[in-house]
Amino acid sequence: MNRVAESLAHAGFALPDAPSAVGMYAPAVRAGSLVFTSGQLPFADGVLISVGKVGATVSEEDARACARQAALNALAAASLVCDLDDVCSVARLAGYVSSERGFIRQPSVVDGASEVLHAAFGEAGVHAREAVGVVALPLDAPVEVSLTLVLHEAHDEKSTPDV
Amino acid sequence: MNRVAESLAHAGFALPDAPSAVGMYAPAVRAGSLVFTSGQLPFADGVLISVGKVGATVSEEDARACARQAALNALAAASLVCDLDDVCSVARLAGYVSSERGFIRQPSVVDGASEVLHAAFGEAGVHAREAVGVVALPLDAPVEVSLTLVLHEAHDEKSTPDV
Amino acid sequence: MNRVAESLAHAGFALPDAPSAVGMYAPAVRAGSLVFTSGQLPFADGVLISVGKVGATVSEEDARACARQAALNALAAASLVCDLDDVCSVARLAGYVSSERGFIRQPSVVDGASEVLHAAFGEAGVHAREAVGVVALPLDAPVEVSLTLVLHEAHDEKSTPDV
Repeated sequence: MNRVAESLAHAGFALPDAPSAVGMYAPAVRAGSLVFTSGQLPFADGVLISVGKVGATVSEEDARACARQAALNALAAASLVCDLDDVCSVARLAGYVSSERGFIRQPSVVDGASEVLHAAFGEAGVHAREAVGVVALPLDAPVEVSLTLVLHEAHDEKSTPDV
Repeated sequence: MNRVAESLAHAGFALPDAPSAVGMYAPAVRAGSLVFTSGQLPFADGVLISVGKVGATVSEEDARACARQAALNALAAASLVCDLDDVCSVARLAGYVSSERGFIRQPSVVDGASEVLHAAFGEAGVHAREAVGVVALPLDAPVEVSLTLVLHEAHDEKSTPDV
Repeated sequence: MNRVAESLAHAGFALPDAPSAVGMYAPAVRAGSLVFTSGQLPFADGVLISVGKVGATVSEEDARACARQAALNALAAASLVCDLDDVCSVARLAGYVSSERGFIRQPSVVDGASEVLHAAFGEAGVHAREAVGVVALPLDAPVEVSLTLVLHEAHDEKSTPDV
């Protein structure tokens, strides 16, 4: 078991199986030392763990659990194109919360995703984040999370060969 | 005609004229090997091809056509700062869908943009994407699309000069 | 006083104190030559300068002032991880506008943030941007702004050492 999976397990989180590619887009794409994931929904074992709008049929606590699950799925997606043990920081966490008019506690919901990054990477999991309330998400999911991860650059890409 | 324009034409798509700069922001910005476009609306010949909310006055099929057009405009925007033939992958496609409460088929709409990337770049057009439902978009557009493209790095930036 | 702070002051803008870190996420993260800020709200002296939805209780002009303040806060956030005088361009400005159904002048609102970038960086402040209308933002803020800045790469990272 690699280091990140072990840290997650220690915090009580299980890294899901990596999602399979979905036609014209991919769960994650690597560009040099950056990894961009697609927006991930709170699927567990193929089923959304909640559906509906936060502040209406979905409670803040259930939504936070959705953010946790979506973040775990985002890490699983990233693991398709990089070794998670090579992550040195997280450039961006975007948390979209399907919000009932009047629900303004998006940060409390997206904290669920931040917790997962902290559990996975410790200090390296500190990240910039955007938390916004949207009117609807795919499949009526309460939360969608995407990540931009930063990898340690391979040393041989930086060094100048002996001549 | 360059390779990407040819591939698009082969799939029945025409690369629009590049948009002109718009005051304080630009259609696209290049940062090293990444190109970030501004959010693009479904303009064709200076007019939005649809207006309104998807799931209300705009059908899913019309919205998909909007996503196609916005993606073409995003490629045209990118072409102002790079040669599209140098694109090696697409890091991020953000698809914002102006959604009536209850409309949850954003992925089907954003597929229109994904189709354009596939037509333009083939395998290199596989991308990470975010599809979200927003309450309103500029000028009442049904869809807004932005892209982050990845370019082949110039070989002379990587090679070590002979000494 | 550094060059950017001086340019802002010349345009009548004051760079706020940098925000303090907020637990599991950071005001900004640097990844090589890119700086990603968290989404910033229009706080001034610890208080949101407006709350509510644009097009309902918040006027377009007040919302534009919010976008200016949020952009200033984003620059202050970025200054925690880089010297703003090293910024050579702005890859992405995301402007989320908490919008009443029917409000479609998000670009006019986000222009407030673009003005700040122009004042701070002049030509180097030209940026790609996304302006979208969302249903709700944290703490009922009318506007949230995040930035991705591009830094001049340090010369010693590029040069090949003498051998």
